[in-house]
Amino acid sequence: MLDEIARVGRSAQTGGYRRFAWTAADHVLREWFAARASGLGLEVTEDRVGNQWAWWGDPDADGPGVVTGSHLDSVPDGGAYDGPLGVASSLAAVARLRAEGFEPARPVAVANFVDEEGARFGVACAGSRVLTGAMSAEHALGLRDADGVSAAEALRAAGRDPAAVGRDDETLARVATFVELHVEQGRHLADTPHAVAVGSSIWPHGRWRFDLEGEANHAGTTRLVDRRDPMLDLAALVLAAREVAEATGCVATVGKVAVLPNGVNAIPSSVTGWLDARGPDEDAVRALVPELERRLGVAATTESFTADTRFDPDLAARLAALLGGVPVIGTGAGHDAGVLATHGVPTAMLFVRNPTGVSHSPAEHAEADDCEAGVDALVDVLRELAGPAAARPGAGPGRVS
Amino acid sequence: MLDEIARVGRSAQTGGYRRFAWTAADHVLREWFAARASGLGLEVTEDRVGNQWAWWGDPDADGPGVVTGSHLDSVPDGGAYDGPLGVASSLAAVARLRAEGFEPARPVAVANFVDEEGARFGVACAGSRVLTGAMSAEHALGLRDADGVSAAEALRAAGRDPAAVGRDDETLARVATFVELHVEQGRHLADTPHAVAVGSSIWPHGRWRFDLEGEANHAGTTRLVDRRDPMLDLAALVLAAREVAEATGCVATVGKVAVLPNGVNAIPSSVTGWLDARGPDEDAVRALVPELERRLGVAATTESFTADTRFDPDLAARLAALLGGVPVIGTGAGHDAGVLATHGVPTAMLFVRNPTGVSHSPAEHAEADDCEAGVDALVDVLRELAGPAAARPGAGPGRVS
Repeated sequence: MLDEIARVGRSAQTGGYRRFAWTAADHVLREWFAARASGLGLEVTEDRVGNQWAWWGDPDADGPGVVTGSHLDSVPDGGAYDGPLGVASSLAAVARLRAEGFEPARPVAVANFVDEEGARFGVACAGSRVLTGAMSAEHALGLRDADGVSAAEALRAAGRDPAAVGRDDETLARVATFVELHVEQGRHLADTPHAVAVGSSIWPHGRWRFDLEGEANHAGTTRLVDRRDPMLDLAALVLAAREVAEATGCVATVGKVAVLPNGVNAIPSSVTGWLDARGPDEDAVRALVPELERRLGVAATTESFTADTRFDPDLAARLAALLGGVPVIGTGAGHDAGVLATHGVPTAMLFVRNPTGVSHSPAEHAEADDCEAGVDALVDVLRELAGPAAARPGAGPGRVS
Repeated sequence: MLDEIARVGRSAQTGGYRRFAWTAADHVLREWFAARASGLGLEVTEDRVGNQWAWWGDPDADGPGVVTGSHLDSVPDGGAYDGPLGVASSLAAVARLRAEGFEPARPVAVANFVDEEGARFGVACAGSRVLTGAMSAEHALGLRDADGVSAAEALRAAGRDPAAVGRDDETLARVATFVELHVEQGRHLADTPHAVAVGSSIWPHGRWRFDLEGEANHAGTTRLVDRRDPMLDLAALVLAAREVAEATGCVATVGKVAVLPNGVNAIPSSVTGWLDARGPDEDAVRALVPELERRLGVAATTESFTADTRFDPDLAARLAALLGGVPVIGTGAGHDAGVLATHGVPTAMLFVRNPTGVSHSPAEHAEADDCEAGVDALVDVLRELAGPAAARPGAGPGRVS
């Protein structure tokens, strides 16, 4: 199924994907999702944010259902699996259940969350954050992309109404359980016999922006002592972030930089560096940025921060047992599943083995057999959670509802 | 006169100019130059490269002439004076000489050189370098801008024929002397009573590109020890360049950076940093990059290097005396005048006081009185060099031709 969208938003130059929210590539992927879901007999709806929900059964009539899914957008020059594997596996699992004549005792849905990566407007999981009210519509609509286009303008350009955007409790009330399948973004499974794992938690993580101000001047005629060169501050930030992260057991990355005016023979007037920091210990992650601010003598702007997120531990244990005792692992990556879990939705994740552990790159990969095993696992999970003998999510295996 | 073009290519966001070669803004400025020159009764021609020459008199009939001028393009977010002051002052000086009934004994021209800053295709003084053969047409046409557009494609898009581009000895044979007036790019004159200085030399200077390769990966899930993060190498380059420059009496600047994929949550796959280095001692400038290569363990690509450039010392002394004993100063900035001087054209520069010393920024400035003094000086210089009693350029004052 991923082959059908393999060319959408792919850069001929890098081989990586550039599928950003509310762009033409995003539109093509949304249309593909709607067409695929409709082909399975699902009823495709959208919430107030633009997340897509394809329902098998009527959650308003029959009570909240079991939702699986992920996202179709990408980081700049991302790979083919991060997001799309979860959406495609969900559609494949529903197709399998349909084919085998499964009759869900409660509604089932496949979801496609908008703007998970935050590649365009800077805040990850924007679709689920606004849906749950974790980010206000006002804040989300005011975010701007690198060209200065606000999310509100981007929505209008995509033929949508920004005024409709907002927290959507009606949609959330339809979700009894959420299960997100995702390619693993590390090498936990690579050296094990397991193709699939269940998620336990998401590390606390955040994004901060350091606006480093200087004075534009001529690179040839300005004495070193007369310079206010913010590129030196960026260098200090990059090295200090690495050093503090190493010392405190976190990971820290400056992966995005904007230089003004970015001319070979001009000392920059300003350099902006974005810091991504995460780690298993929330106190350590929280302490990292103040330490960098102290060393650099500048204040950072918090673009997002997500505390330690634990998925429903009973549900995780139940699914791990159901799948034959697969590992239960944590991850450093944020997901819409984490946002929903924080909101109080019983939530689980399934990870599919990634032989390289590489992620957010065209080199990210999952073997075909492992993808198939992921679909098998999702089929088992949906059959368990939405089947006639389905226990309430979070309850132990074997309990009959 | 600068007011007439004050809005062309100006960014509303930064207040800086973005006048890059063969863009729409460049076209408007070229049309303005041609119209202004024609209005003065000058005959506007172009050489094979696209540099504009506006002649008073016929150099093919009456022998080579005295040329003054500069350029109209800018660095990204540059100021209003770097380049345009020289062109506008040249046109104003010719207008003054016309008005006072001056009859040149040899032809006089005003030149507008194309792509002096190299902001779009990376090589400064491209117009004069190709004109003199210092850069081959083949190399120049193959240069690409940030969007991957080659100079050849940009020329075609501007309605020009790339096949015509090349060294132009016929044009060069028309130039007996070249005088470029330029806003000062430092503070030599700021604390003196002089509004104008004469140039002695241009420091040796060059541009190098450091392609720092890494491995794209997820910022949250990749252990620090597993990373190949080229942003760390950029930080090392920035700090090492500063340190080596300080130790060797040079200036060095990393003012332009390109990060791939430039995503907040992606370790970069590659970071490119451009280094601009200059200094009064050519050996020190030449030694700087090998030292950085050694420290970083990577090879840099030389995009351009210009050796120490001395303007004709007799001509400089003659003009300094003519102008009442003004200072004779060196500069760290490259100019088309330097390229012509290296080619063997007797060449001089006049610098107009800049109270801040700031350059390549909207903050660059010259007071109106000082601009007027620059025009006065240029009038005196043209009267001297092209007048009936004009000595051969380079000869001492008072010698009659």
